Amino acid sequence: MSRKEFTLMRASQFFISTLKEAPADAEIISHKLMVRTGMIRRLGSGIYAYMPMGLRVIHKIENIIREEMNRAGAVELLMPLVQPAELWQETGRWQKYGPELLRIKDRHDRDFIIQPTSEEVITDIARNVIKSYRQLPINFYHIQTKFRDERRPRFGLMRGREFTMKDAYSFDRDVDGLKKSYQIMFDAYVKIFTRFGLKFRPVAADNGAIGGSGSHEFHVIAETGEDALVYSRESEYAANMEAAIALPPSAERAAATRSMQKVATPGQKACEDVTNFLNQPLSQSLKVIAAIRTDIAAGEKGHFVVILMRGDHDLNEVKTQKIIGEFRFASESEIIHHLGCPAGYLGPIGLEKREDIALYADHAVTVMSDFICGANEKDMHFTGVNWERDLPLPENIADFRNVVEGDPSPDGKGTLAIQRGIEVGHVFQLGTRYSEDMNASYLDENGKPQLMQMGCYGIGVTRIVGAAIEQNNDDKGIIWPTSIAPFEVVLCPLGYDRSEAVKKTADELYESLKQSGIDVIMDDRGERPGVMFSDWELIGVPHRIVIGDRGLKDGKLEYQGRRDTEATAIPVGDMAQFVIAKVAAEK
Amino acid sequence: MSRKEFTLMRASQFFISTLKEAPADAEIISHKLMVRTGMIRRLGSGIYAYMPMGLRVIHKIENIIREEMNRAGAVELLMPLVQPAELWQETGRWQKYGPELLRIKDRHDRDFIIQPTSEEVITDIARNVIKSYRQLPINFYHIQTKFRDERRPRFGLMRGREFTMKDAYSFDRDVDGLKKSYQIMFDAYVKIFTRFGLKFRPVAADNGAIGGSGSHEFHVIAETGEDALVYSRESEYAANMEAAIALPPSAERAAATRSMQKVATPGQKACEDVTNFLNQPLSQSLKVIAAIRTDIAAGEKGHFVVILMRGDHDLNEVKTQKIIGEFRFASESEIIHHLGCPAGYLGPIGLEKREDIALYADHAVTVMSDFICGANEKDMHFTGVNWERDLPLPENIADFRNVVEGDPSPDGKGTLAIQRGIEVGHVFQLGTRYSEDMNASYLDENGKPQLMQMGCYGIGVTRIVGAAIEQNNDDKGIIWPTSIAPFEVVLCPLGYDRSEAVKKTADELYESLKQSGIDVIMDDRGERPGVMFSDWELIGVPHRIVIGDRGLKDGKLEYQGRRDTEATAIPVGDMAQFVIAKVAAEK
Repeated sequence: MSRKEFTLMRASQFFISTLKEAPADAEIISHKLMVRTGMIRRLGSGIYAYMPMGLRVIHKIENIIREEMNRAGAVELLMPLVQPAELWQETGRWQKYGPELLRIKDRHDRDFIIQPTSEEVITDIARNVIKSYRQLPINFYHIQTKFRDERRPRFGLMRGREFTMKDAYSFDRDVDGLKKSYQIMFDAYVKIFTRFGLKFRPVAADNGAIGGSGSHEFHVIAETGEDALVYSRESEYAANMEAAIALPPSAERAAATRSMQKVATPGQKACEDVTNFLNQPLSQSLKVIAAIRTDIAAGEKGHFVVILMRGDHDLNEVKTQKIIGEFRFASESEIIHHLGCPAGYLGPIGLEKREDIALYADHAVTVMSDFICGANEKDMHFTGVNWERDLPLPENIADFRNVVEGDPSPDGKGTLAIQRGIEVGHVFQLGTRYSEDMNASYLDENGKPQLMQMGCYGIGVTRIVGAAIEQNNDDKGIIWPTSIAPFEVVLCPLGYDRSEAVKKTADELYESLKQSGIDVIMDDRGERPGVMFSDWELIGVPHRIVIGDRGLKDGKLEYQGRRDTEATAIPVGDMAQFVIAKVAAEK
Repeated sequence: MSRKEFTLMRASQFFISTLKEAPADAEIISHKLMVRTGMIRRLGSGIYAYMPMGLRVIHKIENIIREEMNRAGAVELLMPLVQPAELWQETGRWQKYGPELLRIKDRHDRDFIIQPTSEEVITDIARNVIKSYRQLPINFYHIQTKFRDERRPRFGLMRGREFTMKDAYSFDRDVDGLKKSYQIMFDAYVKIFTRFGLKFRPVAADNGAIGGSGSHEFHVIAETGEDALVYSRESEYAANMEAAIALPPSAERAAATRSMQKVATPGQKACEDVTNFLNQPLSQSLKVIAAIRTDIAAGEKGHFVVILMRGDHDLNEVKTQKIIGEFRFASESEIIHHLGCPAGYLGPIGLEKREDIALYADHAVTVMSDFICGANEKDMHFTGVNWERDLPLPENIADFRNVVEGDPSPDGKGTLAIQRGIEVGHVFQLGTRYSEDMNASYLDENGKPQLMQMGCYGIGVTRIVGAAIEQNNDDKGIIWPTSIAPFEVVLCPLGYDRSEAVKKTADELYESLKQSGIDVIMDDRGERPGVMFSDWELIGVPHRIVIGDRGLKDGKLEYQGRRDTEATAIPVGDMAQFVIAKVAAEK
């Protein structure tokens, strides 16, 4: 290989002004560490400058994404940030979007938005450049700044207002084509996140209006994650809690052993309180949830909804909305108006006769026996209640609850476990949602116009920076995976400006690492060893080499990996190969 | 070298939908060709999507800039697009900027702008991260989207509203340091524009408030350029017309040979008309320009200004403003009010006695003799006028005029020539303009705060795309310099899907070029040769190789450079090395 020219990356250029303390507004560890390492600087609420060390991480993330998108056959373009309102009016999102869509006016009083996403623009491009079935399939992507005017920006890069995303949009002739394009993107995402060196999990996501397995989220696993991820320990099944399926219970309902009794439960309203008061397990209680359908007028049939749940189960609002439609929870006064009893004492007995109430129950409720429920009378509950003896089973049974650890996996294989994750990617089968509104069609083999089938595929570039840190840190600081570290290797010469031997060895090692394509930085700041080491531990560069006169006397340098507890002495002549092999193994 | 994985770049992915006709709103050749080649797509006035082929050019430009900026010791960061108004209020630019500054409000009704430039943000960063003289000098740069709400966006990427720029900002301890940083950037720019493969010229620019040689523009030479560039054929002197110095005439004034006469010139107002009417050369006439100082109230001394010019010379407004201050041209009624005579018949005789008129003359006027001027009386002029005989020489003599071809170079070496250029870069010594308003200081060796000396250095990334095309095109289309071409080489197989020999040869050639780092695209579209060739000539890829059965029978392929008039047959086995050498020679 020919000798390349190189630029010495010097720590003194990078403004390593590591802080002992994080700012008060930093609530999570990634935000704290990014501010402490000077990777980002806040300029306004949810608006940051990416400082040189932080931008290097972002560029590495972008380059991995770009390589894998190209490899998957996607083609890069760049859509503008400021987009004409007209396109957003065509799809109705100009009206539908809330205040997080930043609407602006230009000097001629024309309406524009600053892009939070680009479905409209890419659909406009597609309907203009794609004429024939012969041009399909195609997948366009761009890596671009976006803006969402979050009401309460927080968590540093995790929920900022200005951020960077990769968005890809596929166009296909039919649903089969869309499914293929979707699978190609899914596979590319697995490669991308694997290359990032992050522990991640793709999970089935709620896919809104489209049925089937039309949407997956990619999560970086982290205890601090906002989302609960459900997965089977024995199979591939994985879903966001919102979308995770709870199977109907396989066990039969136990026979009744107790008689129904009305008991006084003064002031005991929550299921927990009632079962504690009666010294019974929470799972023996029946929870009654009153809801109002927002798509049906008050007084109309179906407006007032009651859902029966097992006391220890939580309602899954996303699944619930799919079953009953748009809803909100009923207020206390609405509950009293419809049921004549305050919340906390509600029960199912008698509700089956009410024409004006839509009664539903979760699957798990159907196998309860000898259960406790409200008596529809203040301060009173029933115990020993049994279906079909004391009241009929509700007719409308469905999956209303969040799954819990140990539930059977819906694919029949093993049981479910739950972990937390940070959503950093999303693949989605859009179908004709946008092509229909914007009339994006192509001519098929018969010369007939057909709507294009679209998919969209996002990765939160700047969000990944935060998520990577949430997953990889310790009390010393960040621990970067090698592929996205700001630098792969740091050289810490002790006395770079004092000892000729140290300088010569450091410079030669720098050059041989650089020639082998290693991304290395020289700490030329002349700081004390303790400061140097703790700075680089805080910054999280994965490999550190110390060059000092003491070691050089024995012909040795010190190597320490960021996760190592102590340094290893390596002969000077072997160090380059040693580190090159380490980096290669990790990328 | 180890064998690399590669992705086949296929023409079919790039939506080569070349158009015969350019859209009506495209006024200049670069705009027409970019639209015709599908490199850009208009989404709104001055707002474009960069399609895949166009984005490749932009990325190549960005990468060359990035490499040379890093090499020059600058450090990349990224400042946000949406910037808080507060910073712009600190420097007064929130108020001073016109409507091209897009001001926006967020959901909490707070003021922001979409960045047209980033002096405020970088100065804010600098005052926060730079504490000590030991941290200086430093040069930060970013490559970022910008927005200027132009009143009348036009010329495609040449004057769009959303565009990409590289901006660097240097911070120094003192003026000497600033001058060094400035020179480093100047040299880096020369390298960058040389690597682009463009004919360019750095010229001294008007540097507003700062004296000395504190500002240079970098222009791409093109006949269609908006700017006139002045340069000496015999020296390094070069300046924008706005800033080019006209030396005082070295010749003595010729002696008077004619007597002064008042002649009737009915209806002859412009100097051209008067001299034509009198059958004299234009250079024998004296032009009288009446102006109003806008910084002096009406009625105050100095408010009304008269400038005397040689009839064939043009007033240079930038130089004029430096001499007399902010001004505008006087209206006809203002002229009549002050001089009692309509424009067209004005002359200097008698004006020297007027206390209420500030009288100036350009140097060239002082050596005129036997000249023609207005008689300050409708339809009347004087001929044979001579200084010091008929009227005194004005006291205030200065350089008011645009230089003309053949003028002596102000450095005393040779004569001046003029060519046209497109401004694509600007380096500027800001001094303490921003550090003073924003109190960006560092502590010197004595612990005393000192203001940082700043420089700023811009390159219009997307503008270069347009400028490169303006400079390099013919009636077939664009002719890209190799270093910024969307692809360096295009393979045109004739019958890629029909002939196994053609496909095999094309694929192997593709791979061996790719392995050598050549940026090559395969035209897999199956178009007829004529269509294929004219498409690639329009797109302007610099090297084309045709693979056909007819040539293969003789073991030959056809090579044609974009500027070549005919193709050359090259043995199959030699082609890769032949093209690799061509590309290497051009980069």
